[in-house]
Amino acid sequence: MTGRLVIEDIHPRTPGAEHPAKAVVGEALTVRAAIFKEGHDALAARVLLFPAGSGEAEQVAPLREEGNDDWSGVLVPQRVGRYQFVVQAWTHRHATWAHKVEAKLEAGQEIDVELAEGELLLAAAEPLGDGRLPPVVANALSRLRDRSLVDKERVADALSPPVAAAMWGPYGAVDFTTAAALPLRVDRERAAVGAWYELFPRSHGGFRATEARIPALAAMGFDVVYLPPIHPIGRSHRKGPNNTLNAGPGDPGSPWAIGSSDGGHTTVHPDLGTLEDFDHLVSVVREAGMEVALDYALQCSPDHPWVSAHPEWFHHRPDGSIAYAENPPKKYQDIVPINFWPASDADRVSLWQACKDILDFWIGHGIEIFRVDNPHTKPIAFWEWLIPAVQAENPGVVFLAEAFTRPHMMAKLAAVGFSQSYTYFTWRTERDGPEGLWAYLDELAHGPAADYLRPAFWPNTPDILSGPLRNGPLEAFALRLVLAATASPIYGIYSGYELGENRPASPTNEEYLDSEKYQIIVRDYSQPNTLVPLITELNGIRRRHPALRTMRSLVLHPTDNPMLIAYSKRSDDGTDVVLTVVNLDPYDAQEGWVTLRLDTLGVDAVRPFQVFDELSGSTWSWQGERGFVRLDPARQAAHLFVVRQP
Amino acid sequence: MTGRLVIEDIHPRTPGAEHPAKAVVGEALTVRAAIFKEGHDALAARVLLFPAGSGEAEQVAPLREEGNDDWSGVLVPQRVGRYQFVVQAWTHRHATWAHKVEAKLEAGQEIDVELAEGELLLAAAEPLGDGRLPPVVANALSRLRDRSLVDKERVADALSPPVAAAMWGPYGAVDFTTAAALPLRVDRERAAVGAWYELFPRSHGGFRATEARIPALAAMGFDVVYLPPIHPIGRSHRKGPNNTLNAGPGDPGSPWAIGSSDGGHTTVHPDLGTLEDFDHLVSVVREAGMEVALDYALQCSPDHPWVSAHPEWFHHRPDGSIAYAENPPKKYQDIVPINFWPASDADRVSLWQACKDILDFWIGHGIEIFRVDNPHTKPIAFWEWLIPAVQAENPGVVFLAEAFTRPHMMAKLAAVGFSQSYTYFTWRTERDGPEGLWAYLDELAHGPAADYLRPAFWPNTPDILSGPLRNGPLEAFALRLVLAATASPIYGIYSGYELGENRPASPTNEEYLDSEKYQIIVRDYSQPNTLVPLITELNGIRRRHPALRTMRSLVLHPTDNPMLIAYSKRSDDGTDVVLTVVNLDPYDAQEGWVTLRLDTLGVDAVRPFQVFDELSGSTWSWQGERGFVRLDPARQAAHLFVVRQP
Repeated sequence: MTGRLVIEDIHPRTPGAEHPAKAVVGEALTVRAAIFKEGHDALAARVLLFPAGSGEAEQVAPLREEGNDDWSGVLVPQRVGRYQFVVQAWTHRHATWAHKVEAKLEAGQEIDVELAEGELLLAAAEPLGDGRLPPVVANALSRLRDRSLVDKERVADALSPPVAAAMWGPYGAVDFTTAAALPLRVDRERAAVGAWYELFPRSHGGFRATEARIPALAAMGFDVVYLPPIHPIGRSHRKGPNNTLNAGPGDPGSPWAIGSSDGGHTTVHPDLGTLEDFDHLVSVVREAGMEVALDYALQCSPDHPWVSAHPEWFHHRPDGSIAYAENPPKKYQDIVPINFWPASDADRVSLWQACKDILDFWIGHGIEIFRVDNPHTKPIAFWEWLIPAVQAENPGVVFLAEAFTRPHMMAKLAAVGFSQSYTYFTWRTERDGPEGLWAYLDELAHGPAADYLRPAFWPNTPDILSGPLRNGPLEAFALRLVLAATASPIYGIYSGYELGENRPASPTNEEYLDSEKYQIIVRDYSQPNTLVPLITELNGIRRRHPALRTMRSLVLHPTDNPMLIAYSKRSDDGTDVVLTVVNLDPYDAQEGWVTLRLDTLGVDAVRPFQVFDELSGSTWSWQGERGFVRLDPARQAAHLFVVRQP
Repeated sequence: MTGRLVIEDIHPRTPGAEHPAKAVVGEALTVRAAIFKEGHDALAARVLLFPAGSGEAEQVAPLREEGNDDWSGVLVPQRVGRYQFVVQAWTHRHATWAHKVEAKLEAGQEIDVELAEGELLLAAAEPLGDGRLPPVVANALSRLRDRSLVDKERVADALSPPVAAAMWGPYGAVDFTTAAALPLRVDRERAAVGAWYELFPRSHGGFRATEARIPALAAMGFDVVYLPPIHPIGRSHRKGPNNTLNAGPGDPGSPWAIGSSDGGHTTVHPDLGTLEDFDHLVSVVREAGMEVALDYALQCSPDHPWVSAHPEWFHHRPDGSIAYAENPPKKYQDIVPINFWPASDADRVSLWQACKDILDFWIGHGIEIFRVDNPHTKPIAFWEWLIPAVQAENPGVVFLAEAFTRPHMMAKLAAVGFSQSYTYFTWRTERDGPEGLWAYLDELAHGPAADYLRPAFWPNTPDILSGPLRNGPLEAFALRLVLAATASPIYGIYSGYELGENRPASPTNEEYLDSEKYQIIVRDYSQPNTLVPLITELNGIRRRHPALRTMRSLVLHPTDNPMLIAYSKRSDDGTDVVLTVVNLDPYDAQEGWVTLRLDTLGVDAVRPFQVFDELSGSTWSWQGERGFVRLDPARQAAHLFVVRQP
């Protein structure tokens, strides 16, 4: 039941608060709550941060009222792990008394009784260790009792900031109310911020040959090198080029058809090299300042060792066969799905443990980031168990959910533990409307899942070539790249993007023609006209500007041209502000007026302010809420304005 | 932890679901939930309604998917009281199988294995009492096994609606998942629907004399006659006319300064008559088809018997005095507030019980509706205890919260049990903007508190003369009346409204000049130019149109003239649709186009439809989404269109 005060609507939280909301080390995490009680007393509140299982607060921060009983304060978590935070509030007797005294003095009313009340209040302040009152309080009390002074002089000291400060917290606090603790997971920064690059090692000639590509990726400023499955590939029903059914003997097959007589999820494909070669690639990537992310695809080729060793982990059909994956009329004959709910619970336990063993194996080989394939086809209860179990032993492990599915499932996967999530960004190409970028960015930054779903923006994947990229010019790739890299702290591209690879499988098929999923693609990365310079610039700008490493600070600014989208971000401390304006038209120059929400940029309407374009190096001076922009895609896709008002 | 299926975001609910959401007897209550699981199986779901404390469901209704994993179904509660409802969902094996078979047949794919799966599935159907399968299932099973038929014929019966129906529910259901129960309070209709009239019996000459006014109120169609406090009024610091401090011997004082040597909250003021006279008035009102509502104002005059008998229930100041109410610089010397948290818990228990005893006393005198004065100045925990305690013994009791305060407190009072709530309607006079009627109506009908906060719209109260009513023409009173009576199922007026009483206390004071709170007002209700005919019409229309007795069905329709606001409502069964268009300008005729959301009116764009104006008796024929209206306040304030498409 309700305590003396009401404390509710506490954020950050997941729905129902069974699972932790998310923060990263060093982030200024805003804690919000509605706090109120009956009547007109002055209240005060604070938030305490406890490591999970500890009764000792690691951090305490005041909450301040922002109007209409909405309070907020800031925690800055210092270490990776599970936490709880607790909001406490109380009636602040000194502030209540001070307000009353000030209002009565203002109105010229008598304060005789208030003087007596003040004496009682100050005398009740918590004494120091020697039993005496804090000196400022004792001094104010003696002045209150000095009848030779006029009323205003008698209360002056008692109303002063030092006395108010000394009466803060437990001093003069009544109706002390503690809300239920809420769980919080604090991740390392890479869970929330990162530039990803996806490549197929087999197209580079295996692990050792891939090492030659690493310096170029590091030079472009990427943080994560993500490899599709590196395991043996099944022979049964192997897919040929362009997803055909009869693979020739030289066709390598889809890396997602995992497992052969060579081994399963803890084996590397012999064509890629040895496990030692893999370890070496991991170390080369690490030395280049990046990390390797592996694919975690819980499915098997019919030739996977599990299929014969553990038939109880698969779906059996009445004819004795093991079911392959299908979503009629589509068939995925080269893959058999795992049955995560075998008839016997002992089998379920051994299966789930075996799935965790895969992660533990690769964690043992230095991998701490996993891109999880199709998590929405596995039970929520499985992830709810797996992710905290892994992170309890290895707190730095990061999971990216590759779920392109309906909104409730997307949010639930994030709520039960995924560190970051693929999004609908890939298909959000217009600015306006319910499926537009404006509504989507606003939802991701400020919607109900913003406390726990961290969006990852991928303009392309090996499965998806969409929107203006299809048969599109390099300018289309540039504008989608800028959007991804500036709108979300986490973004990634799949190799070939920088070259503008743009040929769709067919007018109605979202995949690539001659997809690398089914064949080896050798690319000429040395060609002259690529996005490498822009990628390098963008990743550099992202590193220089903490504003771009935030999501919740995103603010959209209207423009009078629907081909121009404008949004800004601020660093936690407010000192870094970046306003991005992107031309969504890859073919023609677009111009228009941006109507700036000045207060969110930290500038006033009275004085001029500078906008310095990180991409062109030019500076403009603007004043007031309207700024003019013109963007010609032949010259630049976007402005990345650093906003400063001297 | 999560079950086989995820069932979440269940509504109706209060935040946190500790307190019941609200429904009324006979209401079609929509239950919504997000329901999903991994993969592509077909799901099914239902909702069960249990009387609180009973394990036996009183009602079961199916939930249907409405897209994107959002499901809904309808309960129709039959009796007043506390309930719980439970959502259950499961994987529907028959539907999953049927979808697969149909998709494969469509694609011309083989279904050999599916035929075998179908045999197993149908054979596993729950047998009848005699151990045999339901005949339709047995028949379909023998056809499935008949190899002389072609595939399509073999499955035809198994896919037929009778077999699908027989396989519904427990047949073929796996992954059965039950969500946590949510509490629901079912009230009588008067808690959610009613037209109120407020009058001061003393201005009519006491209880017996007031009886003469009752037939007129019944003829106007009111449901509730609400009386400000009828108790003895204190002498100490009694207020004179216009809230002055020195009342003369003939001044009656504010009825809210409760208690004198004549008695307290369970006594009637001798000037009004005896308790028997009061009982008689109550019976006269009841015979006229209405109910009396009493004021429940938990505060005392300094002369209240409790002040001397229970000094521990009041705030004492250092000079020994009992604190009067003040919110500096304002002073309410004729009232002392109660201290709901006395130092001793035994004192708190006896005080809270004494407060409940007051209600029980008046319930014993036939009163079942209480308008609660300033509930936001009493602890939330008090109401959280009091209201369910009263309703446990007297389930039909209705509480109206008179809280004009900040939004969180307003919502919390409703969440912990108040049946209905005063709102900001009194100050919402423009259509547009964040403080406009459009945003407010949308919030009340569809916002986060719509599951439990029932708005009461009062154009005026004895304390509030606002907006266009201040020195305004009778046309202003007409338009605000129509808004109140049509936008909310609960509305009320304070007597004098029908006469257009419009004189404010001062240009800056929201109260009435010569307020009835401090003096007796004798009115001439027989004057010719009043709103009595309009009130009578409106209350009659409200009774004839179930659409107007709903709130959650409200839909706003844009107009191209900001002085015209348009909104529609539909009855639960969809057969009654009323579109209201109000001219917010009391002085000039306004015209414009309404852009109709046709689907919400139950009409299509292809054929003409009729709009019959209940106020003028005229009918127009419209077609498509645009309708033209012109409203001259000299003739009528609004259209109340009944929408019908033959």
